[in-house]
Amino acid sequence: MPPATVPPAPSLIPFHQARQPLFVGVDLGGTRIKVGVVDDLGRPLSHLSVPSEPRTGPENGAQRMGQAVRDAIQQAGATMASVARVGLGSPGTMDIPAGMLLDPPNLPTWQNFPIRDRLSHHCGLPVAFQNDANAAAYGEFWVGSGQDWHSMVMFTLGTGVGCGIIIDHLIFDGENSHGAECGHIIIDHREDAPKCSCGQPGHLEAYASAKGVLRRTEELLASGRKTSLSARVSAGHELTPLLLAEEAEAGDELSLEIILETARYLGVGAVTLMHTIDPSGVAIGGAMTFGGHDSALGRRFLERVREEVRRRAFPVLAERTVIDFARLGADAGFIGAAGVARLEHTKQKTAVQTKTQKKE
Amino acid sequence: MPPATVPPAPSLIPFHQARQPLFVGVDLGGTRIKVGVVDDLGRPLSHLSVPSEPRTGPENGAQRMGQAVRDAIQQAGATMASVARVGLGSPGTMDIPAGMLLDPPNLPTWQNFPIRDRLSHHCGLPVAFQNDANAAAYGEFWVGSGQDWHSMVMFTLGTGVGCGIIIDHLIFDGENSHGAECGHIIIDHREDAPKCSCGQPGHLEAYASAKGVLRRTEELLASGRKTSLSARVSAGHELTPLLLAEEAEAGDELSLEIILETARYLGVGAVTLMHTIDPSGVAIGGAMTFGGHDSALGRRFLERVREEVRRRAFPVLAERTVIDFARLGADAGFIGAAGVARLEHTKQKTAVQTKTQKKE
Repeated sequence: MPPATVPPAPSLIPFHQARQPLFVGVDLGGTRIKVGVVDDLGRPLSHLSVPSEPRTGPENGAQRMGQAVRDAIQQAGATMASVARVGLGSPGTMDIPAGMLLDPPNLPTWQNFPIRDRLSHHCGLPVAFQNDANAAAYGEFWVGSGQDWHSMVMFTLGTGVGCGIIIDHLIFDGENSHGAECGHIIIDHREDAPKCSCGQPGHLEAYASAKGVLRRTEELLASGRKTSLSARVSAGHELTPLLLAEEAEAGDELSLEIILETARYLGVGAVTLMHTIDPSGVAIGGAMTFGGHDSALGRRFLERVREEVRRRAFPVLAERTVIDFARLGADAGFIGAAGVARLEHTKQKTAVQTKTQKKE
Repeated sequence: MPPATVPPAPSLIPFHQARQPLFVGVDLGGTRIKVGVVDDLGRPLSHLSVPSEPRTGPENGAQRMGQAVRDAIQQAGATMASVARVGLGSPGTMDIPAGMLLDPPNLPTWQNFPIRDRLSHHCGLPVAFQNDANAAAYGEFWVGSGQDWHSMVMFTLGTGVGCGIIIDHLIFDGENSHGAECGHIIIDHREDAPKCSCGQPGHLEAYASAKGVLRRTEELLASGRKTSLSARVSAGHELTPLLLAEEAEAGDELSLEIILETARYLGVGAVTLMHTIDPSGVAIGGAMTFGGHDSALGRRFLERVREEVRRRAFPVLAERTVIDFARLGADAGFIGAAGVARLEHTKQKTAVQTKTQKKE
């Protein structure tokens, strides 16, 4: 069985070793809110998680997030004054410049909510706001797999396929807060292609997400192909990517085939992004990475993505573009959100300095 | 018959009306080199064209380009001193930061040639170097269809499908000079999808380029579908997008169907780019725009692209992203190259000012 996809808790540094200013990252999900204090070099000082309880409504959520921020600061042994800014990574749909949640499917009743300003009110600190997949990508760019890269694309494989694109500290959030929604690039133009969770046919997410994997598995099970999955499902096990991984590692050919086919689709998507962005590297993270570098199956998955890229990308890109697993695991969310806060803080500082220079 | 796709000569402004500094744009193609002097507001003062004669070799080419630059300056009634910089838009493959042509298929024998520095030597002015499709996109961004946009994607439809992506004066040339090669995004992941001119299956260019149009037309002709094209081809007419346009306007259903299908494929590609970049707008230019806004067929083509985008893009993007024809026609190349020169000149000026400020 591959290692669980839940990463270990991050190693924390003590307050006296931290380089100031500090930032707090908040990773808002449909189930949990992860919060951590991060120093100016991207190292976490504290890390906690509270339930989202989306049904209690957005104002209550913002209040509990604000409390979690203060708790994380206390846990870090830090003071409010040492924290320059809070970063919030949130699922969409959203209006990033306005700091608004618009209609987030995972947070029902949180529609049209000015979450940035309400969180700022409840924690008493300025808040930077960003899409969660973009924040995670920025975390990897800042202190993870992309820390030596000038530009990168990150895919986050889970129930869906998230994506973030960074070029030299520019986060692609787009003109309408829909930048880097690359789970929704079209890899099959046909009208009757498999449907994405968004309802449209042929999107990458319809093939390379957990949902896509399960759809293809169910099709193959229904076709009567021989596989040890049938017995597991009959015995009451839920069909999940983890179950596939277990059976693939135990020698089930069909399970392995589906996992490697998923890698092939991801490779196709990576090539489209490489021919669009031509980034330094492509990072692959999220819950569905089959154990990553620590597992033979994970390494085989990655090798299959790389093989597809080598076969299909322009030769110079096939040779030079790094394709690798992301490094921060589930911490990418809050570390990246802290990085977004730092980015905004730095920009504002520069703007103030420029203003001062102009006045002189 | 739709209007010829060759645009009218640009209207030129006299030297005394120009806002200085001036820039010279050079659009290097496999057949012709177009050169023009452009003022600080993007208005052309002169415009000429000389044969590329690629077979005479790159040094000879650079020499004739240098002469054309001086001729264009003279035609504009300007002096060398009034020109701040020359911009060169060139087909790839190339190394943009190094100013090198690497292996351009349209310029055989021009391999591994330091074209930026050789042109600079021959014209006596500093030269900025960029990919031709990126330069054309920057021209549209600067003073064409995108002049009111913050970010844009431009498709150039011709023998192939060129592309350029601009976000707020940032030209996407990528880490390896392969940015925005979006003719080569994969819109059909299957191994047996139609092949692109680059040899790979399923690329947008295999469907939405002139080559793709002709391949699909030949397939339908071979299948025995009734069409007035058969008689034209039998009478010795060459099968071209222009012939298709003529027959479509004369009422041939098959010709119209192929043209609108091309628009559909382009719409699919546009949606992938919209879900990646989320730009202010998407511009469609190049030789194969079926007469553009001036022709009923061109307008129908554009409407079909927009329809596909409305059906497939995220609702907010379908509503807000402008999809339109490019405005500069064949002048986009040299105007854009001049814009690239201006961009580099401005950056250098800013850098010098910052340096001066720091010294103070």
